[in-house]
Amino acid sequence: MPEPFRLGIAGLGTVGTGVVKIIQEHGALLAARAGRAIEIVAVSARNPLKERGIDLSRYEWVDDAQALAGRTDIDAVVELIGGSEGLARALVEGSLQAGKHVITANKALLAHHGYALAQCAEENSVCLSYEAAAAGGIPIIKALREGFAGNNIQAVYGILNGTCNYILTAMRESGRNFSEVLLEAQERGYAESDPSFDVDGVDAAHKLCLLTSLSFGVKPDFNSLKVKGIRRIDAMDITFAQELGYRIKLLGIARRLNGKIMQVLEPCLVPVDSPLGVIEDVYNAVYVEGDFVSTQLLTGRGAGEGPTGSAVISDIVDLARGQRIPAFGVVTTALKDAQWKPLGETVARFYIRLSVFDRAGVIADISAILRDMNISIESLIQRGRDPGQPVPIVLTTHESPQGAVMEACDLFSRLEAVVDEPCLIRIEDFK
Amino acid sequence: MPEPFRLGIAGLGTVGTGVVKIIQEHGALLAARAGRAIEIVAVSARNPLKERGIDLSRYEWVDDAQALAGRTDIDAVVELIGGSEGLARALVEGSLQAGKHVITANKALLAHHGYALAQCAEENSVCLSYEAAAAGGIPIIKALREGFAGNNIQAVYGILNGTCNYILTAMRESGRNFSEVLLEAQERGYAESDPSFDVDGVDAAHKLCLLTSLSFGVKPDFNSLKVKGIRRIDAMDITFAQELGYRIKLLGIARRLNGKIMQVLEPCLVPVDSPLGVIEDVYNAVYVEGDFVSTQLLTGRGAGEGPTGSAVISDIVDLARGQRIPAFGVVTTALKDAQWKPLGETVARFYIRLSVFDRAGVIADISAILRDMNISIESLIQRGRDPGQPVPIVLTTHESPQGAVMEACDLFSRLEAVVDEPCLIRIEDFK
Repeated sequence: MPEPFRLGIAGLGTVGTGVVKIIQEHGALLAARAGRAIEIVAVSARNPLKERGIDLSRYEWVDDAQALAGRTDIDAVVELIGGSEGLARALVEGSLQAGKHVITANKALLAHHGYALAQCAEENSVCLSYEAAAAGGIPIIKALREGFAGNNIQAVYGILNGTCNYILTAMRESGRNFSEVLLEAQERGYAESDPSFDVDGVDAAHKLCLLTSLSFGVKPDFNSLKVKGIRRIDAMDITFAQELGYRIKLLGIARRLNGKIMQVLEPCLVPVDSPLGVIEDVYNAVYVEGDFVSTQLLTGRGAGEGPTGSAVISDIVDLARGQRIPAFGVVTTALKDAQWKPLGETVARFYIRLSVFDRAGVIADISAILRDMNISIESLIQRGRDPGQPVPIVLTTHESPQGAVMEACDLFSRLEAVVDEPCLIRIEDFK
Repeated sequence: MPEPFRLGIAGLGTVGTGVVKIIQEHGALLAARAGRAIEIVAVSARNPLKERGIDLSRYEWVDDAQALAGRTDIDAVVELIGGSEGLARALVEGSLQAGKHVITANKALLAHHGYALAQCAEENSVCLSYEAAAAGGIPIIKALREGFAGNNIQAVYGILNGTCNYILTAMRESGRNFSEVLLEAQERGYAESDPSFDVDGVDAAHKLCLLTSLSFGVKPDFNSLKVKGIRRIDAMDITFAQELGYRIKLLGIARRLNGKIMQVLEPCLVPVDSPLGVIEDVYNAVYVEGDFVSTQLLTGRGAGEGPTGSAVISDIVDLARGQRIPAFGVVTTALKDAQWKPLGETVARFYIRLSVFDRAGVIADISAILRDMNISIESLIQRGRDPGQPVPIVLTTHESPQGAVMEACDLFSRLEAVVDEPCLIRIEDFK
C-alpha cells in the first residue's frame, strides 16, 4: 500500500469533531476505499481544553493553525475554522501556496474569495475541495462537478439552510410567530446565538453562489446576489399560504434565461405537495435541471456533525485516491463573468399581503393600481371585517414582471388606507 | 491541452445514440470539464443502415465490435450492447485484457460476472465504470463509491425500474389491471415487446446486486437474490392498499441485520405520503442510510436516452480526468462473500389477500391459523357479501417473521373455502 495520506486539521467545532470521529471509527474502511491510510498528523483549535468527546492525544497539537501550512509532513490541510477573512483565509491561502491540498467547509470564504483561491490552487498544482460547504451531507458539489458533467445545466435551486427550514416548519405547525420559534430553535441548538447569518439568508446565499458557479461555469459573485431572509415572514403569511395550497420555503434559485443568469435567495411560496413543499424541518434539498439528465433531486441532512463530517471525508478520500479536479469544475481561465438578469425583468406569480384600514373603496384603489400596472389578479382574500381597524388583504397575481409588481407595492404603500410595508413573496410552481 | 481521450463505442441503441449526441452537442463543454477533448474514434452496431438521427459519418464504422478491444488508437471501450453473455461479455473481457478502460451500462453482465471482470480490470490496471447500469441519470454509483465513502452503509433501497413504476402508477390511476396497462406501456415505448426482464423484476434485481455490493463491500451475487415481479399484482390489491393508506411499489431492498445482509426485490406496500410513495411514473428513487450522513434520497429519471447517456458521459469524463477507482470501490481482494439473511428470518408487517367462498366460519378458520402461528392481525377487511361466490378478504399483520407468515399462507390455501393462491405483500414503513 502507498504512503498514508497525511492531514492537518484546523478547527475542532461540530464539523471538525465529526471528521476526527469518522477517521477514528472507520480507519480500516477508509484505508480500503482510499487505497491508503488516512492519517491525522496535527490538529489546531482555539481551545485545547474544551471537552469534545474524542481522544486527541495521538495527534500533535498546534497552537497556531497557520503553522500547518508550512509543514512538510502534511499532504492536505482541512480548514474548519470558518469566516471569510482572518485566520481561515490566511491558512487556506498559505496552505495552497505551500503546495498543500485544502479541504474546507467554509462557504463564506469561497463565496467571497473562491475565484482567487481557485487560481492560487491551480498555480500551485493542488486542489481546493469543499463538498461540505453546501447542503452538508448531500453530495451536490460532486454531482455538479462530476455526476452531471455531460449536461448543460439549465437551473439549480433548493432549500439550502436547515435552520430556516426548521423555523418555517415550526411556525406552520404551531402557528407561532418568528421570534418565538427562533428562541426555541436557539434553545434546541438549531440556531446560533447570533442567528443573523442563517435567518437573513446569508449562509444559504453563500451556498447558492457556489452552486451557481459550478452549474453555469461562471465566477462566484456574492455581491451581485439579491438576498432576503425570513425575519419578515409573519405567522399570518404562513396561514394564508396554506389556505392557497402553498408552503413558504427559503429558496436559492439560479436559472439560465436566454444568455443571462437569474439568481435570487428569498422566501418563496411552493405548492404544499411539491417535492420541495414536503421537505421539512432541518432537511435540505437541491434540484438540478440538465439538458440531458432532465430533473434530478437530492435530499438529505444539510448540517450537523455526522452529515457535514461525511462530506469532508468524501473530499479527503477523493484526494487520497489521487483525484484532481479544478475547484469549479473547469480551469479558472474558463470561468466566465456572469451576465446577471435583473430581478425586475424576471417574470413570476406573486403573493402580496397588505394591511389596510377596513373602509369602503380600498379594494377599488388597489385594483386600479394593478390595472394601471397591467398586473392581473389571480385571487383576492379579505378576511374579517373590523371597521376603522387594519385588516389583511391577500392577493395573488398571474405571471407578471417583478419590477412592475414591486412598483405596484410601492404605490400601495402610499395609499392612505394602507398601513405597514406590503409583504411581497414570489410564487414558484417549478412547472 | 493533453491528448484527446479516445473512445470506441459498441452498441447504438437508445443509450448509445444518447452518448453520441451529448459528445457532439457538448464537445467544447466536455473538453473544458475533462481538461482534454473527448473523441469518438470508431463505432459499431448490428445495423449500419438504421436511422438514428445522428451523423456517424465522421467515425470509423467497425462491423465486428470485438475488433475495438485490440485497437491501439482507443483509450476506452464503451459497451452498450447489453446481455450478460455473448458479444457484450467477450468485448468487455477482451478490452480489459487489452488494457483499455471499459464503460458500460450493462447491469446484467455486472450482476453475473462483475467480480471476475473487476479482477480482470485490476490485473490490467484499467477501470471498469458503470454509472449508467443503475438508476439511469441518478449518480448513485458515484454517491456510494465516493460521496458516502466516509460511512458504514446500513441500508440501500429504492425504486429501480421505471417501467414497473409506470405500470403500477397507471394501474392505480385508471383502476385497470396489469395486462391492459402493460399493453399500453408497450405501445408508448415504456416497455419492451418482451417485457419479462422489467415486469418480473430481473432488471431491478441486477441493479440492486450492484448497489448491495458497493454499499456493503461484498461480491455481487445475483443468484442468491430473491426476486418477485409485479405480474401477480391485481387491480384489487392496489385499491385495497390505497384504502389502507399505501401504494404498491416494486422495491429493491438491502439492509445490514447484525452481521448478515437482507436482500430482496419484490413489490411492497409503502405509505402513500412517504418519500417513496410519491415517486410515480417512470421516476426512480434510491435511499441510502449511512452511519454518519444519516438518510439521503436521490430521485430522477432512471432510464431513457438523455438520462442514461448523461450517466455514461460522467464515467467518460471521470476517466478522461484521470480518476481511477476500483469497480466496487475497494480492490477485489477486499470484497467479502456476503452472509445473506434468510428471508424467512426477517421480520416485517404483511398484507395478505385471500379469495374465499363467502360462507360461515371462514374467518374463524383463518384467525385460528394465525393464532396458532402466533401472528397478530392488525386489520381485516371483508368487502361485499355474495353467498356461494368467492369474495376477497384482506388482512394486515403486525410485525411477524416472514417464514411464519408464508407458512400461514400455505395453510390458508389448503382451506376448502379458499380459492387461488393467497397474495402476500411486504409492508415497508421505513421507520
